[in-house]
Amino acid sequence: MSRRADASGDVPGLVERARAGEARAVARLISLVEDESPLLREVMAALAPHTGHAQVIGITGSPGVGKSTSTSALVTELRRAGKRVGVLAVDPSSPFSGGALLGDRVRMQDHALDREVYIRSMASRGHLGGLAWTTPQALRVLDAAGCDVILVETVGVGQSEVEIAGMADTTMVLLAPGMGDGIQAAKAGILEIGDLYVVNKADRDGADQVRRDLRSMLALAERPEGAWKPPIVKTIAHQGQGLDEVVAEIDRHRAWLESSGELDRRRRRRARDEIEAIAVTALRQRWGDVHGRSELDELAAAVVTGETDPYAAADDLLDTVTG
Amino acid sequence: MSRRADASGDVPGLVERARAGEARAVARLISLVEDESPLLREVMAALAPHTGHAQVIGITGSPGVGKSTSTSALVTELRRAGKRVGVLAVDPSSPFSGGALLGDRVRMQDHALDREVYIRSMASRGHLGGLAWTTPQALRVLDAAGCDVILVETVGVGQSEVEIAGMADTTMVLLAPGMGDGIQAAKAGILEIGDLYVVNKADRDGADQVRRDLRSMLALAERPEGAWKPPIVKTIAHQGQGLDEVVAEIDRHRAWLESSGELDRRRRRRARDEIEAIAVTALRQRWGDVHGRSELDELAAAVVTGETDPYAAADDLLDTVTG
Repeated sequence: MSRRADASGDVPGLVERARAGEARAVARLISLVEDESPLLREVMAALAPHTGHAQVIGITGSPGVGKSTSTSALVTELRRAGKRVGVLAVDPSSPFSGGALLGDRVRMQDHALDREVYIRSMASRGHLGGLAWTTPQALRVLDAAGCDVILVETVGVGQSEVEIAGMADTTMVLLAPGMGDGIQAAKAGILEIGDLYVVNKADRDGADQVRRDLRSMLALAERPEGAWKPPIVKTIAHQGQGLDEVVAEIDRHRAWLESSGELDRRRRRRARDEIEAIAVTALRQRWGDVHGRSELDELAAAVVTGETDPYAAADDLLDTVTG
Repeated sequence: MSRRADASGDVPGLVERARAGEARAVARLISLVEDESPLLREVMAALAPHTGHAQVIGITGSPGVGKSTSTSALVTELRRAGKRVGVLAVDPSSPFSGGALLGDRVRMQDHALDREVYIRSMASRGHLGGLAWTTPQALRVLDAAGCDVILVETVGVGQSEVEIAGMADTTMVLLAPGMGDGIQAAKAGILEIGDLYVVNKADRDGADQVRRDLRSMLALAERPEGAWKPPIVKTIAHQGQGLDEVVAEIDRHRAWLESSGELDRRRRRRARDEIEAIAVTALRQRWGDVHGRSELDELAAAVVTGETDPYAAADDLLDTVTG
């Protein structure tokens, strides 16, 4: 379907239909993002005036803590509050892209027929820089489509968690009892990125211990005056328990983000990263092929032979664009 | 010490002493790399004519497979063959930098007094892009200092393994029996990056099973005609067993790299990456502060309010350097 939209090139019509809440138009726009379509420039220009409304919630945690179940339960709770919800499941390690992944349907089947919920899986093995390139643009599509809340769930591990946190207004870190070495095993990074911690599977042995450990580790962090203190909520996601409290904490965090000015700071930082990524990608494409030959390849060959060094070569490369 | 070298600014003298094999001069040059010293430009220019000799071996594998022991045993074997050896232990997650880490001394104490062995730990939490920025420059220092072989051992996990593989002529992946789910648990990435696989702790139960599993998984990979087929070697590193075979396979891989033209291709690709990283960093610094105000900050603010979109903002940003 994305190929057809690509071919037809009717960007204004597509954006109009997406804004009117047509799920297929939203899906096509996200496909254009995934395909790194040349139309993206036009798409993003058309979306820009309609963005800035959605609250972006990053959901992260080790495999097995119940991320998918929690996401689904959170969607239910947000729908109860009358919010339009977008769900973006990002799998940086997956070679599969877009569209109708079986996984979505299985775990999100409760919401499959809800017209106020958009669900999308995205792989991120694009040419232009993966996660960092595609995710912000997909978020713009869902934002312009009128989502009040967008949940970004990362399926991967490691670096992607930190990347997702960088793209979210609110980062929710999930833990669960009985996950091997527990918190000690959780990378220190996890303790730095959370705005909200959820101890899922709270009916299992050890949940209180996880919360206690987490609380004492969070207490060690030095926070400036007026800083947000990440709360810890216990949930039993598959029974929907505790999700009301999660939504309340998300709302409370949003209010703090706005009153403290942090929302604006985070969004500006993200816009900076996004602009830079696009500019650098454009330059890389130019460097790769200047006047029909690759300037960069020739410089690289000279560095290999020791004729020049990387700094001098970088100067030469910059001269090709700064003229 | 690095501060003093920095202050004195005697780069030609420092490079001369490093080339003559003075360990302290080598250490100072690597400190300049870690400190992202403004002298680096001059250092790299002075080193360039003396680089290109060393074979860079990346050593990677999950925690617990015996990377440090294997590295130390490999140094012993390489020294037996009369080679000058550099060891760079890179820990992308460490906030500690440089110099005399206790870890080095403990695990490398067999080689501490050998003047033909340089050992260095490097953290990579620099401002300019971590691992990708510092490691290639540290490799240039060790290369120019006359190392025949440089072992780059990554202490971290995840993305860093793939990054290290990108910087090495030969990537050695370590496995061991009894590591949880074994190969199944190893990320698919590991099976793509190895030029040489080592099953360490070969005296333990399950070593042959690991080798069989690995062999059948490697057999599934499609390789073009004439491509290198990664061999699998069994070792017991703490007894020094099998390391002679590892060195033989490293030599065989080097010969293949040269005869196939792949060595040159890999080195050019690395030089490309390095030049690009330096050029992009220089641009970022310019964008961050043009004429005393931040062009990028202003553009980011306009994107947040929806006044402009990231593509148009990127065009404006590029105009500031190409204008």
